[in-house]
Amino acid sequence: MKVLVTGGAGFIGSSLVDRLLREQHRVLVYDNFSTGCPEFLAEARQTPAFELWKNDLLNLAELKSAMSGVDLVVHFAANADVRRGPEHPHKDLEQNTIGTANVLEAMRAAGVKRIAFSSTGSVYGEPQVFPTPENAPFPVQTSLYGASKLAAEGLIAAYCEAFGIEGFIFRFVSILGERYTHGHVVDFCKQLKEHPGSLKVLGNGKQRKSYLYVQDCLDAILLALQKAPGKVNIFNLGTDEYCMVDDSIGWITERLGVKPERQYAGGERGWIGDNPFIFLDCSRIRALGWTPRLTIRQAVERTVDYLQSNTWVMERV
Amino acid sequence: MKVLVTGGAGFIGSSLVDRLLREQHRVLVYDNFSTGCPEFLAEARQTPAFELWKNDLLNLAELKSAMSGVDLVVHFAANADVRRGPEHPHKDLEQNTIGTANVLEAMRAAGVKRIAFSSTGSVYGEPQVFPTPENAPFPVQTSLYGASKLAAEGLIAAYCEAFGIEGFIFRFVSILGERYTHGHVVDFCKQLKEHPGSLKVLGNGKQRKSYLYVQDCLDAILLALQKAPGKVNIFNLGTDEYCMVDDSIGWITERLGVKPERQYAGGERGWIGDNPFIFLDCSRIRALGWTPRLTIRQAVERTVDYLQSNTWVMERV
Repeated sequence: MKVLVTGGAGFIGSSLVDRLLREQHRVLVYDNFSTGCPEFLAEARQTPAFELWKNDLLNLAELKSAMSGVDLVVHFAANADVRRGPEHPHKDLEQNTIGTANVLEAMRAAGVKRIAFSSTGSVYGEPQVFPTPENAPFPVQTSLYGASKLAAEGLIAAYCEAFGIEGFIFRFVSILGERYTHGHVVDFCKQLKEHPGSLKVLGNGKQRKSYLYVQDCLDAILLALQKAPGKVNIFNLGTDEYCMVDDSIGWITERLGVKPERQYAGGERGWIGDNPFIFLDCSRIRALGWTPRLTIRQAVERTVDYLQSNTWVMERV
Repeated sequence: MKVLVTGGAGFIGSSLVDRLLREQHRVLVYDNFSTGCPEFLAEARQTPAFELWKNDLLNLAELKSAMSGVDLVVHFAANADVRRGPEHPHKDLEQNTIGTANVLEAMRAAGVKRIAFSSTGSVYGEPQVFPTPENAPFPVQTSLYGASKLAAEGLIAAYCEAFGIEGFIFRFVSILGERYTHGHVVDFCKQLKEHPGSLKVLGNGKQRKSYLYVQDCLDAILLALQKAPGKVNIFNLGTDEYCMVDDSIGWITERLGVKPERQYAGGERGWIGDNPFIFLDCSRIRALGWTPRLTIRQAVERTVDYLQSNTWVMERV
């Protein structure tokens, strides 16, 4: 099988690329390297079955060419800078919504019939039901990031209906693990590397969040691609637990052997559109036989260990 | 109050413009006249409080200029060609999603703090709950039109959260009445004018649909703008009834005094993404004190009468 992975030079994308290559698939990575890391593709580059196109999703002509002979598109490329959405609203629209529209148009032009998409639990806005199932009450969006991903989901579902495409939409919690490059663990590790005695925390530390280990996430995606039967398959991906930001800080500082003074910015939310409670009902993907292998604590610790051995990642942020 | 009405030369938009002018508001119509009719603004043009800008939503610079001094944006401009979505998927994206993003950006730049938006019952995809309430289970999109409107809804809600804007989102059933220019009534009237003896019907005639009279629709919008209290206010707008396409054909042909032979294309759906059953729960807007004055049958008959007296509308289709 030939798989085109958009955002294939990123954290989750490059991790998938390595697994696909190990499973003997051909892989074409399409990435603009706005946040992707050439280093993450070092292993992949050794493989003749690997191909790299450095380009942007907004370049539709190039995207169409890239689709030639592709059996499956895994569309991971996105502006994932959730917090700073209000500083550049057009970035979410362009990279996430218009980018996805272009991927779908390119697929249609080339006759590619399967797409897997990294959506987000943020599409639930601030849900009333916990754990939140895929068919939770129709949400009201609270972030530009969530809105742009919801728009992309809608486009994918409509293309599936109109053009006989098969869609796999995965609503992720925050993903952790090797090659993790942005989010609270890297922010905290970076701060503590520079000033081990103090730690600035967005919000009040009581936000309840969910996390998933990257390899568990990829297991779920690969399983769903094999087993899910529908035209439009939507799955939450997370663990059956959540933690407080304060819990995570405890695990991180213990792992690093530091005892910083915590300085809270205060407030229930870390930033505009931040969701103070994320906890997804993942029984749909579990029904296919998937179980995550790491707990949130273990995933946080692996991420800390990874960043300790790869301090260059913290320099990039 | 100064109101900017995008799509103000269209069916519903121009009807609103006349009402706003009668209520002594200043009105700026922003319309690209792709489907809008100069004729619909004949009355408005007589009023000094009326201003017309012929331009496209994709022209962000012009849209920003148009926002100067505006208190409320009523954003009705859209590609409403639901049926032919699959022939030009980019049109829905550009006119509906990107167009809405531009309206919001222009509002943000000019400090305009209120927006009313014409969404659609199509955002429910093919719902499982009837009548369908605003908080129905998270839908899966089945049309490019619905997907583009859902994307616009999400953008509006996210802008409300991020930038302190107040949003009013109205999910319309199909609207009927004076100045109606596209949809099944004009299709049927046009066919019957040319060949009174036969009528081609998309689908099997059993599709169950909901309709609302344009002045009832405007009553609801103007009431919600006065009374709805929230940051993001979402309302279904429809009657508490539905009819079959066959019922509607009966009313139309009776009104026209013809007895055509009906030729059904067959199938549960009239076109790709057509929803065989639309019936919205409108108790939320009714709780504000709104009641539609016309039944679906009366609204269909008024539309037929309008088209009979304004045959030029049928020539435009």
